[in-house]
Amino acid sequence: MAEIKTTTKTVDLESLLPVKGFKAIGVSAGLRRSGKPDITLIVSETPCASAGVFTTNRVKAAPVLLCMDHLAKSGDQMQAIVINAANANACTGEQGLTNSQQTAQWVAEAIGCQPEQVYVMSTGVIGVQLPMDKIEYGVKTAAGELAEDGWALASRGIMTTDTHPKAISKQGSGYTITGIAKGSGMIAPNMATMLAFITTDAALPQPILQQALRDANNQSFNRICVDGDTSTNDTVLLMANGASGVDVSEGEAYDEFMALLTDMCIELGQMIVRDGEGATKFITIEVNGASDDASAHQIANTIAVSPLVKTAFYGGDANWGRIAMAAGRAGVEFDQTQMNLWFAAGKSFEDSLQVLANGMPTDYQEDDAAAIFAEEDIYVKLNVGNGSGQATVWTCDFSHEYVTINGDYRT
Amino acid sequence: MAEIKTTTKTVDLESLLPVKGFKAIGVSAGLRRSGKPDITLIVSETPCASAGVFTTNRVKAAPVLLCMDHLAKSGDQMQAIVINAANANACTGEQGLTNSQQTAQWVAEAIGCQPEQVYVMSTGVIGVQLPMDKIEYGVKTAAGELAEDGWALASRGIMTTDTHPKAISKQGSGYTITGIAKGSGMIAPNMATMLAFITTDAALPQPILQQALRDANNQSFNRICVDGDTSTNDTVLLMANGASGVDVSEGEAYDEFMALLTDMCIELGQMIVRDGEGATKFITIEVNGASDDASAHQIANTIAVSPLVKTAFYGGDANWGRIAMAAGRAGVEFDQTQMNLWFAAGKSFEDSLQVLANGMPTDYQEDDAAAIFAEEDIYVKLNVGNGSGQATVWTCDFSHEYVTINGDYRT
Repeated sequence: MAEIKTTTKTVDLESLLPVKGFKAIGVSAGLRRSGKPDITLIVSETPCASAGVFTTNRVKAAPVLLCMDHLAKSGDQMQAIVINAANANACTGEQGLTNSQQTAQWVAEAIGCQPEQVYVMSTGVIGVQLPMDKIEYGVKTAAGELAEDGWALASRGIMTTDTHPKAISKQGSGYTITGIAKGSGMIAPNMATMLAFITTDAALPQPILQQALRDANNQSFNRICVDGDTSTNDTVLLMANGASGVDVSEGEAYDEFMALLTDMCIELGQMIVRDGEGATKFITIEVNGASDDASAHQIANTIAVSPLVKTAFYGGDANWGRIAMAAGRAGVEFDQTQMNLWFAAGKSFEDSLQVLANGMPTDYQEDDAAAIFAEEDIYVKLNVGNGSGQATVWTCDFSHEYVTINGDYRT
Repeated sequence: MAEIKTTTKTVDLESLLPVKGFKAIGVSAGLRRSGKPDITLIVSETPCASAGVFTTNRVKAAPVLLCMDHLAKSGDQMQAIVINAANANACTGEQGLTNSQQTAQWVAEAIGCQPEQVYVMSTGVIGVQLPMDKIEYGVKTAAGELAEDGWALASRGIMTTDTHPKAISKQGSGYTITGIAKGSGMIAPNMATMLAFITTDAALPQPILQQALRDANNQSFNRICVDGDTSTNDTVLLMANGASGVDVSEGEAYDEFMALLTDMCIELGQMIVRDGEGATKFITIEVNGASDDASAHQIANTIAVSPLVKTAFYGGDANWGRIAMAAGRAGVEFDQTQMNLWFAAGKSFEDSLQVLANGMPTDYQEDDAAAIFAEEDIYVKLNVGNGSGQATVWTCDFSHEYVTINGDYRT
C-alpha cells in the first residue's frame, strides 16, 4: 500500500495508484490566470454506483443543484465527474444552471454517456457566469488526454489557492481506492470550497455506497474546520465501478472497505486543515465524557471555531481559560466542576500535561505548557463528565496571515 | 436630557446624571498593575427592586453563581453592587465562591445591609484566586468615598483593557436612569467580559422589572458581537429604588421607561462594539423577510460572526458573496433566488446600493460599493423573502490588530 504522508504539507503524487476502469486528467483551459490546470475530468469506462454528500448551505451553487438532480435521474449510475476551478458558478441563477447542463452535455458527447450520468462541479469566484468557450475547450481537451495515471494532474486541476495538491490512494484486498481533494484555498471574492472526489474499482451497490460515504464523511470532512464558514459548493463524491470484480458490500470485506475509505477521508481532511489559510498549527481536539457523541462533537467544534482559542494557538499561548469558555458556550449541558483538560505535543495523547482538574487549574508549570504550544502539532483533550459521548475534530490556528489573505481587496 | 455621543469612541462623562438615592465610586486597590481604579461600588440608600440577566455559558464564574443565588434569597431586594477588575474569579472552585461571599459580607458591613442584598461581580484573569487583602481594602475605601456624582469613576473602575469608559444617562418624566458598561477589552488569560450596571430612581416592582430588563437586553446586548465568544462572567444588572416617587410600572409611563431603557442598552452595546478588540469598522446588519424574528436574528448573527465576512469588512472589500454564504449556513430555511442585498454608508439605510437582486448580482459599479466600504460605519441590509421576521445586529470587523491582541502570549 502506498504511503502518503499527511503530517507535513508535502504529498507524494508519485505514489497515487490507478483505479481499474477509471481514467483522469487535469488540463489548462485558461480559467486560471496563472495558466495552471483548471479543468479536471474523471471518467469510468462503465456506469458506476455513485454517492454524494453536498453542502448544507441554503445558498447552493448551480453545479451542486445539478449534481443532486443528476444522481436522482441516473438512478445513481454516474460515469464522469468534470470540475472547473476559478469560478464557483454560485449566485448565477438560471443561466448558471443552463451552463452546468451544457458542460455535462459536452462531457457526455465526448465520452459517450447520458448527460445525466455526468457530475459537474465548480470552485472559485462567485456571482460570475462561466466563460463557456473556455469550458468547452477544456472539456474536449481533457477528454482527449484522459489517462489511467492522470490522477496527479487531476489533483492539480481542482486547486484554487491551495498551496499543494491533496490526493491519496489505498489498496484493499483486490481493489484500489484513489481520492483527490481541495480546500482552504481562496480566490476572491469567494469562500473556501471543500471538494473531494473518490473512486474505487470495488463493487458496492447503492444504497450501501451512500451510507458508506455518509459514515466516512461524518468521521472525517465533517470533523475539520478552518474558520467555521461553510461554502456554497462543498461536495464529496464517491464512484464505485466494480471493475476489480471484488464485491465489498458486506461482512469483513465491507468492514475493510469502510476502514480504508474512512482513513482516506480523514487523511484528505487533515491535508485540508494543514493547508488552511494562514495556518501555522495543526490541532487535534478530543472531547469525551459528554452525554452523547453529538454533544461531544458540538463542544469540540465550538472550541475549534472560537477566534479567541484559535488566536491563542497562533500565539503559542496555552490558554486553557479560553478553551473552557468555548466549551461552556457550546449549548451543551455539563457540570463545570467535572472539567478535566490535558495538552500534549504531536498528534496523539502521549506525554500529556493536565492543566485543569475538576474545573480548577492544576499546579502545572507554565513552561511545560508553553513547550507543548511551541510545537506545530498540538493535542487537546477535554473531559466534561462521565458520559460515553466522544468526538475528535481537527483544526488550525488563526494567524495574521489569515487576515491578510481574507482582508485583501478582490483583485 | 444629556446627550452622549455613541457614534465615536469618546463618551462625555461630564454629562452623567446622578440617580436619586444612589451613590457610586471607583477606587484603586492595586488589582490593576497600572494603578487605575479597579474596585467599583454602587449603593442604594434603600433596598431596590432588582433584575439581572446572566451569561448562558455553562462555565459560570463564582460571582455569577453568587448573584443568581443572592437575587433569589433577597426576594429581588438588592442594595449594592461591588465589582472588581483584573480577576474574573472563574474556574476557582469552592474557594472562589467563598471569596465572593466574603466580598459581599464586607460590603454589607460597610453600608449596613444583608450580604444577600449585595451583587458581586468580577472581570479579568480566570483561574486565579482573588487577592482578598486588596479586595477588603478596596471595598472599605470605596464605601468611604461613595458619592452621588461618582458615576464617572465607577465607569472607570470596571474597565479592563477597554480603551475608554462606557456610560450614559437618560432623563425620563420625573426620574433618571444611569448605566455603565464595559466590554471587548481583554486582560490575558481571559476572554472579553461584557458587564452593564443600570440604576434608576423610578419605581418598578418585580417581576415587571425583570421582564423589562430581559426585553431591553434582547434588543441590545444580545444583538452585539465582537467575535462570537461568550464570556463566563457576562452580566447585566438593573436596580430600581423608586426614590423619585415616579411609578413607571404600567401604561404610557412604562412605555416611556422601556424606550429609554432599551435606547440606553443599545447605546451602551454599540459603545462596546466600537471599542471591540482591534475594531476599525462599525457595521449594522439588518435582515428582514425571514419567517420569524428568531430566524432573522440567526441569519444576521451568522453573518456578524463569520470570519470571512469580518475580514472582508476590514479589507474594505464589498464582498457580497461571503455575506450570502454566511446567510446560507445559518441553519434557517430560505429561497436563495429571493435574496436581495443592499449596502449603505453610515448607521442607516440611506443612499443604499443594491448589489444582489433575486439571488444574482445587479449591474452595480464596484467603485460605488468600494466607496461605501471605505467608510467607518457601514449598513448592510439583507432581504431573504416575504416573511415578517426582522432583526438588526451590530458588529465590528476582524483586523490584524485583533490577532495581535489575542495572539499575544499572556504576560
